[in-house]
Amino acid sequence: MAERGILERATFAPGDNIFKEGDPGDNAYVVQSGAVEVVKNIDGENVVLGIINKGAIFGEMALIDDNPRMATARALEGTTLIVVSRTLFTAKLAKTDPFIRGLLNIFAENIRNMSKKA
Amino acid sequence: MAERGILERATFAPGDNIFKEGDPGDNAYVVQSGAVEVVKNIDGENVVLGIINKGAIFGEMALIDDNPRMATARALEGTTLIVVSRTLFTAKLAKTDPFIRGLLNIFAENIRNMSKKA
Repeated sequence: MAERGILERATFAPGDNIFKEGDPGDNAYVVQSGAVEVVKNIDGENVVLGIINKGAIFGEMALIDDNPRMATARALEGTTLIVVSRTLFTAKLAKTDPFIRGLLNIFAENIRNMSKKA
Repeated sequence: MAERGILERATFAPGDNIFKEGDPGDNAYVVQSGAVEVVKNIDGENVVLGIINKGAIFGEMALIDDNPRMATARALEGTTLIVVSRTLFTAKLAKTDPFIRGLLNIFAENIRNMSKKA
């Protein structure tokens, strides 16, 4: 990723929780190196929803709403993440083409509405 | 909207269809002036899903998938639209911050998956 300025990074050892289901969420993350497992407690059982690999984004719903984390994210190996706070996100949005920004708003709104119905 | 370069525009008289349910779709639109009614045929009846006013975007799903239009869009009054083709969208995306671009991809993917389940 071509990024300017100073990015906040965080490192995790294998097995470390990045966040836990039910936690309040303020940041999204980009996997710079390593891998992250997303686990959700369904009827008392831990179900792996997916693995997030290098370059991928997770935790992004924290940027568009105030709901608690819907799943737990855990480092599968030594992992470095780029932390995208709401503040950084807002700054990035301000520099974004208005059409793209409008599209992002519509998509976020659709996801919110569809999630309510689900 | 602060836009640079030459934008394609299209004008419609009251009652004109912009696109019809079932049409293939290649463009999204921004309402520059006027208003647009979105109508869907549900069990043989025309149901108004919403009114799109100045500054708002519609038809945006055409930019992310090849599905036919899910509803009809019709000018309610004399209406001027900014036409955003896939080509223009791709050019805008190329200039967008990689994190914002990644987010847009994730959201589009979520909407696609949720739509399949609905």
